[in-house]
Amino acid sequence: VTSNRLETFSDGVFAIAATLLILNVDTQVGEEARDLGDRLLHVWPSYLAYAVSFLTIGIMWVNHHTVMDQMGRVDRRFLFLTVGLLMCIAFVPFPTRLVAEHVRGEGGEAATLVYGINMTITAVFFGAVWRYGSGRLLRADADPRVVAGITRSYNPGPFIYGGATLVALVSPIASAVLYALIALFYVVESSFFAKPLSPQG
Amino acid sequence: VTSNRLETFSDGVFAIAATLLILNVDTQVGEEARDLGDRLLHVWPSYLAYAVSFLTIGIMWVNHHTVMDQMGRVDRRFLFLTVGLLMCIAFVPFPTRLVAEHVRGEGGEAATLVYGINMTITAVFFGAVWRYGSGRLLRADADPRVVAGITRSYNPGPFIYGGATLVALVSPIASAVLYALIALFYVVESSFFAKPLSPQG
Amino acid sequence: VTSNRLETFSDGVFAIAATLLILNVDTQVGEEARDLGDRLLHVWPSYLAYAVSFLTIGIMWVNHHTVMDQMGRVDRRFLFLTVGLLMCIAFVPFPTRLVAEHVRGEGGEAATLVYGINMTITAVFFGAVWRYGSGRLLRADADPRVVAGITRSYNPGPFIYGGATLVALVSPIASAVLYALIALFYVVESSFFAKPLSPQG
Amino acid sequence: VTSNRLETFSDGVFAIAATLLILNVDTQVGEEARDLGDRLLHVWPSYLAYAVSFLTIGIMWVNHHTVMDQMGRVDRRFLFLTVGLLMCIAFVPFPTRLVAEHVRGEGGEAATLVYGINMTITAVFFGAVWRYGSGRLLRADADPRVVAGITRSYNPGPFIYGGATLVALVSPIASAVLYALIALFYVVESSFFAKPLSPQG
Repeated sequence: VTSNRLETFSDGVFAIAATLLILNVDTQVGEEARDLGDRLLHVWPSYLAYAVSFLTIGIMWVNHHTVMDQMGRVDRRFLFLTVGLLMCIAFVPFPTRLVAEHVRGEGGEAATLVYGINMTITAVFFGAVWRYGSGRLLRADADPRVVAGITRSYNPGPFIYGGATLVALVSPIASAVLYALIALFYVVESSFFAKPLSPQG
Repeated sequence: VTSNRLETFSDGVFAIAATLLILNVDTQVGEEARDLGDRLLHVWPSYLAYAVSFLTIGIMWVNHHTVMDQMGRVDRRFLFLTVGLLMCIAFVPFPTRLVAEHVRGEGGEAATLVYGINMTITAVFFGAVWRYGSGRLLRADADPRVVAGITRSYNPGPFIYGGATLVALVSPIASAVLYALIALFYVVESSFFAKPLSPQG
Repeated sequence: VTSNRLETFSDGVFAIAATLLILNVDTQVGEEARDLGDRLLHVWPSYLAYAVSFLTIGIMWVNHHTVMDQMGRVDRRFLFLTVGLLMCIAFVPFPTRLVAEHVRGEGGEAATLVYGINMTITAVFFGAVWRYGSGRLLRADADPRVVAGITRSYNPGPFIYGGATLVALVSPIASAVLYALIALFYVVESSFFAKPLSPQG
Repeated sequence: VTSNRLETFSDGVFAIAATLLILNVDTQVGEEARDLGDRLLHVWPSYLAYAVSFLTIGIMWVNHHTVMDQMGRVDRRFLFLTVGLLMCIAFVPFPTRLVAEHVRGEGGEAATLVYGINMTITAVFFGAVWRYGSGRLLRADADPRVVAGITRSYNPGPFIYGGATLVALVSPIASAVLYALIALFYVVESSFFAKPLSPQG
């Protein structure tokens, strides 16, 4: 029961954070936009930023699901670590808008730094949730190889995002491209090479 | 379990995208509106656009439910195809506002084009989710005739929306009317002539 | 299964529509508000409107739950009638803001009319969902007296809201007070005099 | 079934209220922000306010879950008390923005008062939900010691928040710090010293 409610709440935050991303695109095109076609083309970074952040939140949702699959129970510390993780997920729409609006201008460095720092902290929380959960709350029948595989796949997360964040200091556009590539790489890799989701999937 | 969480997440995105549509209507009527009654009548395309997009998202939710009903399990590729579909669903509020605001003015063509392109891509993703799922992930007891019927009913989707989108190049208002008619036709057709939802429904 | 997903989707729309109501209060107090205390007192109709609409949506959620409790299955027509009902529920935040902003000024009549018309249509849809569902989709073990009691309690809905709407033509403030009293009356009546929710509740 | 739908609806409101908090941060940084880096540093109270309110809503969600765990059934009065509680939860984003924007300026007192009053009312509703539920709707197998422990832990809530609210009359900043400390204290205390969530957790 406890796990189920945690999943409902988490799924809610993931779904809402992803769906709110469209508001960022929406505010780019004011009501009085004279030449609507031109304006719609001009804001193309908004569409890309929308897609990358939506996909990234989707990936984290899939990963969260993989984590919960291995848990036999949850305790309060696990709940609060998850609340911390969700706090980072729900933050994503803000830096997404910053990057979409500023990546081509003066504020590009600040925008991509904030995006990257948020993603790095998210990855740290993800690791903490998994480490705490896999240390104490595993299902009795959890497969040790699956558990070790998940640990291996989550360990590099903070370093990958931390690295892409540092790139923002040199080239904001390069770091934005990296954020997109990380998401794309993950989808391709886990779609074609990853182990099945579970005995049933 | 996996299917259930996918449904919770998807239902969340469908529900939020539909409910956010009201923000489009809301922004049409500023706080300082002098003659509120006149203003409320003037923005009638907003109400129509709200209803059409709400209904269209509702139809896609019903269809998504029909698809999930036939799935025995899900895998990562199916999850990511669904994330792509949801990315299009969550995008709907943006072109809905564009159409409501601009269909009567100069920006009508751009607005209805964006609306139609998004719907066409949504239909393509819908087809991809179904084709992938029906090829590999069907329930053991899925009825081949039901499966073939679903395939038949989804195949024309991208062409219908693609056609209505092309109409926008000639007459934006005509294409907006077509978007409405597609939704209405679907509801009438599936309410009165479609096979039941499932053995239980 | 079908009923469950309908409930998840509906609960989502009810919950989001209710939670979005706070945005109406929020926009009443701009960032530059000089004398914040005064401004916060001045916008008291916003708090009342928030509470009345939140409660009204909560009541409709409870009623929807009562309806679903009696259903043994759902079909497409029931799904689309429910989508129509939810379209009205999701609309509530817009007229709520209109009433909060304009009830004291010139636009009071238009604002309270729109609020009342939306509520009347909602009540009509509620009746339609129940009449269709109770005619064809009842649980095999539904208690005819409970069914008749629900029918009796929903029948007056459109007339009560229709009447309060007509009052707006004479006195917007009186009709706003009526909308509040309808919600309060319902909560008091059903809390103290109504039959239990179900054999278990 | 009834309990389940109440949980879905409640989880929805908790999740949406928490996720909407990011809009408060978002509006602090306008599109035209010249020196984006400076602006992002200047609005640091927004980040703190976001974190404190997100955590507080998360704590209330955990507590609501603890309450529901002990309930064997729900009735209409319990439903409406919960709707009242959720009305306060959904209100949180508004005073959160007020505090973030005004705590450093003239409006600090009004902002922190509104925040505290909302939290105090929330705690009162929480107590009412628990008192009503624990008096009539407990599971047959509820452990009296667990029930007594929950009562003891909820009793001080309104007084703690009421006290912190009164502090706002003397020092708005001190009361804002207290709101943060209350949340932090709760997380630390319940993570390290609290009884397990349930026999399973």
